[in-house]
Amino acid sequence: MSRAAIYAAAVADLWAGQQDGAHDLGHLHRVWANAQTIAAGEGGADLEVLEAAAYFHDAVNLPKNSPDRARASTLSADLARQVLAGLGFPVAKLEAVSHAIAAHSFSANIPAETLEARILQDADRLEALGAIGLARLYHIGGQMGGGLFHPDDPLALNRPLDDKAHALDHLEVKLFPLVARMQTATGRAMAETRAERLRRHRADLLEEAGFTADGRRKG
Amino acid sequence: MSRAAIYAAAVADLWAGQQDGAHDLGHLHRVWANAQTIAAGEGGADLEVLEAAAYFHDAVNLPKNSPDRARASTLSADLARQVLAGLGFPVAKLEAVSHAIAAHSFSANIPAETLEARILQDADRLEALGAIGLARLYHIGGQMGGGLFHPDDPLALNRPLDDKAHALDHLEVKLFPLVARMQTATGRAMAETRAERLRRHRADLLEEAGFTADGRRKG
Repeated sequence: MSRAAIYAAAVADLWAGQQDGAHDLGHLHRVWANAQTIAAGEGGADLEVLEAAAYFHDAVNLPKNSPDRARASTLSADLARQVLAGLGFPVAKLEAVSHAIAAHSFSANIPAETLEARILQDADRLEALGAIGLARLYHIGGQMGGGLFHPDDPLALNRPLDDKAHALDHLEVKLFPLVARMQTATGRAMAETRAERLRRHRADLLEEAGFTADGRRKG
Repeated sequence: MSRAAIYAAAVADLWAGQQDGAHDLGHLHRVWANAQTIAAGEGGADLEVLEAAAYFHDAVNLPKNSPDRARASTLSADLARQVLAGLGFPVAKLEAVSHAIAAHSFSANIPAETLEARILQDADRLEALGAIGLARLYHIGGQMGGGLFHPDDPLALNRPLDDKAHALDHLEVKLFPLVARMQTATGRAMAETRAERLRRHRADLLEEAGFTADGRRKG
């Protein structure tokens, strides 16, 4: 059994009984794959730390509307430490894993102080962009009971943005701003490609819904 | 108040208390817009019938997993007849509206026998394709509690398709086959453009998730 498979099985145990299509084992595998791509581009990262951090970063997975959500990454870091120690992970590297996990979430507001922490943050952020980001965006909107987009003013030309009511608003509120907040050059280049896919989706959607590219109703 | 606004307000009353991001007034406005585009391309449709049918086609909106779902279009047709009669809609055209609504759903298995019925079916089907179709696909997956895509075999090379478990499977199971079932040449051309957007999304998603274009894991 590979190390990744052991970690995935351990997190599956921690998640038993939870059902969340936007945070499943596939998400963990993809974050680890993204992390490896970024690490290869940047050089110098400790892959043992990065792999453990990638698999355990959502060990404690709270719903988007949970009041404890800002604490989820710290809780995940603590739980990762315990479980990894039990799996014989090198004790000297536990602190590095724990820091990367704690710092990966913006809402925790903990600065990423190591290369591994910066890479993990970028690797996880990429999941919010591109085709996968789109799938997750609307999936979460469906879970939470919001709508797809504002039927009369999809680009919010004459209303405040409200991404709880309109999934499409989440692009401006949260997703496009991620690109500028990427921590590594490799991650940023990947984020730009994926943000372009979101822009193309939005342009297609406007066209299909009878709006011009700048959000005005046609005709 | 335009006729469309009166119809939309009447359906909003019928839907009061329901919350469904994939079937909202925006959906009705877009189906009517699609229907007008198709009618312009085909020529000869009765726009008064088409407009009423577009706005009332989901008057009875049952969840995708409801056992009565196959009857929803017939129930909608009956309800439309009642409400439209009350709104002073020409009695001689009620049967044509009712037929178009009853026949619009595949699951009802009622052949579309009029041009208006064929146009309405195409106009509604277009909403399942393209950027809007994508948004609805994942939104409904989130509502129903399924996953985004199979993490190890996203194209179902070595497993049966299962669109309840994996939203992406819905492309093969239901959405791509719609193109060949379009009833008008104008509708089919629009469907092909939108199916291409779904294919592009799937290709982007495979790339981001670490798969080749034919669904094999890279590396």
